[in-house]
Amino acid sequence: MGLISSVFIATSLDGFIARTDGSLDWLDKANANVPAGEDCGYHVFMESIDVLVMGRNTYEKVRSFGGWPYGSKPVVVLSSNTIKIPEDLSQTVSCSSESPKALCECLTQEGAKRLYVDGGITIQRFLAENLINDFTITVIPVILGNGISLFGKLEADISLRHITTKAYDWGFVQSTYEVVRT
Amino acid sequence: MGLISSVFIATSLDGFIARTDGSLDWLDKANANVPAGEDCGYHVFMESIDVLVMGRNTYEKVRSFGGWPYGSKPVVVLSSNTIKIPEDLSQTVSCSSESPKALCECLTQEGAKRLYVDGGITIQRFLAENLINDFTITVIPVILGNGISLFGKLEADISLRHITTKAYDWGFVQSTYEVVRT
Repeated sequence: MGLISSVFIATSLDGFIARTDGSLDWLDKANANVPAGEDCGYHVFMESIDVLVMGRNTYEKVRSFGGWPYGSKPVVVLSSNTIKIPEDLSQTVSCSSESPKALCECLTQEGAKRLYVDGGITIQRFLAENLINDFTITVIPVILGNGISLFGKLEADISLRHITTKAYDWGFVQSTYEVVRT
Repeated sequence: MGLISSVFIATSLDGFIARTDGSLDWLDKANANVPAGEDCGYHVFMESIDVLVMGRNTYEKVRSFGGWPYGSKPVVVLSSNTIKIPEDLSQTVSCSSESPKALCECLTQEGAKRLYVDGGITIQRFLAENLINDFTITVIPVILGNGISLFGKLEADISLRHITTKAYDWGFVQSTYEVVRT
């Protein structure tokens, strides 16, 4: 349907995006070694997307940092329950209980070209519905042993096309893959 | 103690080394795209190691392929039960029920300098005892959704130093990390 859905995320070497309690201390610790002004392609990626879609957990995690990092970029929070969006975000943040497929159709009609799909459960839901087009995964040089996984169970294998890999001097390894449609 | 224990393994993007039933069909399928004569560094790695250590599952999997791929290289099969080693392998293959630590001490005394630790459970046992020095992981461009994980639970984070990453034309991405001793 012309809409591109993309994932841009950091994981531990063992594939976790957060500790079991949602904590990102390991990522913060790793980021302390990153040179000032370096964002591993995040800004360029953000410029390419029209809408962010995330789950309630990710929304609440981002809110807990204080401030709001997405500026005027439209954000859809997926949740089966209604979320009270604060007044100051109400122009850009909306809540939806639609399925990934229904949401994609709706956003396509509204003119969106590229979505940023974020958060473990949301990514897994989109992937299960065959709605993710590409992944950019930045592997942090740490093994956590426990946590919230980027990937979950699937009905069938998903074949990927490797696009590019970049190893940064501070040990992050960022790879981009496209999903091969079957 | 001077002994280096190394892992050299392929995983899916979601970190599986085999399907739940041990099947490697996805890896065989991916390897069909690899140019003849290319082994992604396996031969060079094998030349650098003195002894292979693997679990019973891996041993039986390798045996199921027919033949024996390790030539005259000493192989230790870790198993709590005794395994009947066939006559034609008895010169190079032995069975041990020792702990990883005890085995490493024993092999060090016998003059081993570098071990190749293979198989999910065995790698996880060595890692849990802080006995792995380096990982070379070749990520295959496929998401399986289920299977036997390379990594398991840990008592504490393991910090890594990224050494090198190579992206192959056919989509494999091979990274080497050293474990940072704390």
